[in-house]
Amino acid sequence: MTYCVGLLLDRGIVLLSDTRTNAGVDHVSVYRKMHVFEEPGERVIVMLTAGNLSVTQTVVAKLRHEAERPDAGPDASVLQAATMLDVAEVVGNTLHRISLEIGEKMAPQEHAASATILLAGQRRGGQMRLFLIYPQGNFIEATDDTPYLQVGEHKYGKPILDRVVRPSTSLEDGRKAVLISMDSTLRSNLSVGMPLDFLTIERDACRVAVRERIETGDPTFAAMSEAWSRALRDGFANLP
Amino acid sequence: MTYCVGLLLDRGIVLLSDTRTNAGVDHVSVYRKMHVFEEPGERVIVMLTAGNLSVTQTVVAKLRHEAERPDAGPDASVLQAATMLDVAEVVGNTLHRISLEIGEKMAPQEHAASATILLAGQRRGGQMRLFLIYPQGNFIEATDDTPYLQVGEHKYGKPILDRVVRPSTSLEDGRKAVLISMDSTLRSNLSVGMPLDFLTIERDACRVAVRERIETGDPTFAAMSEAWSRALRDGFANLP
Repeated sequence: MTYCVGLLLDRGIVLLSDTRTNAGVDHVSVYRKMHVFEEPGERVIVMLTAGNLSVTQTVVAKLRHEAERPDAGPDASVLQAATMLDVAEVVGNTLHRISLEIGEKMAPQEHAASATILLAGQRRGGQMRLFLIYPQGNFIEATDDTPYLQVGEHKYGKPILDRVVRPSTSLEDGRKAVLISMDSTLRSNLSVGMPLDFLTIERDACRVAVRERIETGDPTFAAMSEAWSRALRDGFANLP
Repeated sequence: MTYCVGLLLDRGIVLLSDTRTNAGVDHVSVYRKMHVFEEPGERVIVMLTAGNLSVTQTVVAKLRHEAERPDAGPDASVLQAATMLDVAEVVGNTLHRISLEIGEKMAPQEHAASATILLAGQRRGGQMRLFLIYPQGNFIEATDDTPYLQVGEHKYGKPILDRVVRPSTSLEDGRKAVLISMDSTLRSNLSVGMPLDFLTIERDACRVAVRERIETGDPTFAAMSEAWSRALRDGFANLP
């Protein structure tokens, strides 16, 4: 499994993904699930992937190939597409096609070949947007009412997001919120694991502002996790 | 869906269940999922049920019928079975049989007919035990290392249990823990709903100590929920 979360805030976008993949409990690996396409100042596009690794790797490789092909048009290249909505369509179509192709091959073994993608970004002059793209290629979008989206093991880390994330949340508080949400997931589910990939985009900058890998044993993350545990225990002890 | 949780503590057992059942979003009803079989001072047995309502109702009705049948033997009656382990076998066998019967009828429609049961209790002179019985009738048991069990929508409310529940937890703190765990689930999942059924059994008393229905708008539960929200927000605000 996987846990990826994205926040669409007034001041920008905050993204966090884990890196664990597993095919059974004895085949556990580390893979980056955060993929960046960027022309700094012009456009920035980030994808967080969850699901079958052969599907997500193939989708990202195809998108990367098209983005680098000099004569690729706006229908194929996420760096040529006119708007973030068009980018979502390119990604959705690619995901749908690859899922079908791989799904057909795997059908006799009754293995699932589905994947889900969080897509975030902005083009100069365009809107900053955050989408969740389903295996069938259709998608939904974060709004003021629901300013966050999650893929993978989303349930453990949802209660804290429901309570603290609003569009007006600062990028710093957004960072804390996604890290706490991830921490709850890491503690309760073995299929989600360190290290983590963290990224922020400031509104209208059209470039990555912060990109960071948080390794196992990272002292800042460990301190936050410990402080949060203490806050929960203290809060619990002081309940009426 | 459903959320039921049970704690096996040094001082006794704490149980909490919601009451929402739904077949689609426009067919939502209130059903008690907590079922008590008791000879006060002699034995107390409580079941919390999750899953297909026709399965759980039929299972409980059959068990009730056998418990009340004067000539039922220890193989059929949970009030005659010699130990809690034997009770778990009677319940597991009944659940397995009913699941198969109803599942066969529903197979053409490809509807699932599965259910899961939390079983808790004690017989005079016996051990206090807490089991989770799977649809196939097999079961697992709470232990000192893992003193709680959940059925239904268990993920939202698991992080708080992981952090605060130990065998040495008092019954009062156990009550707070299951209510907070339920509160997180209620907030994040529409298929779990008020009112709630709460029950405690004190060790070696072999009778229900507290049994309470917590209605929508209950002022104590609302105050606890609000205090917990405040504690989470304050804890979050004070993170490094």
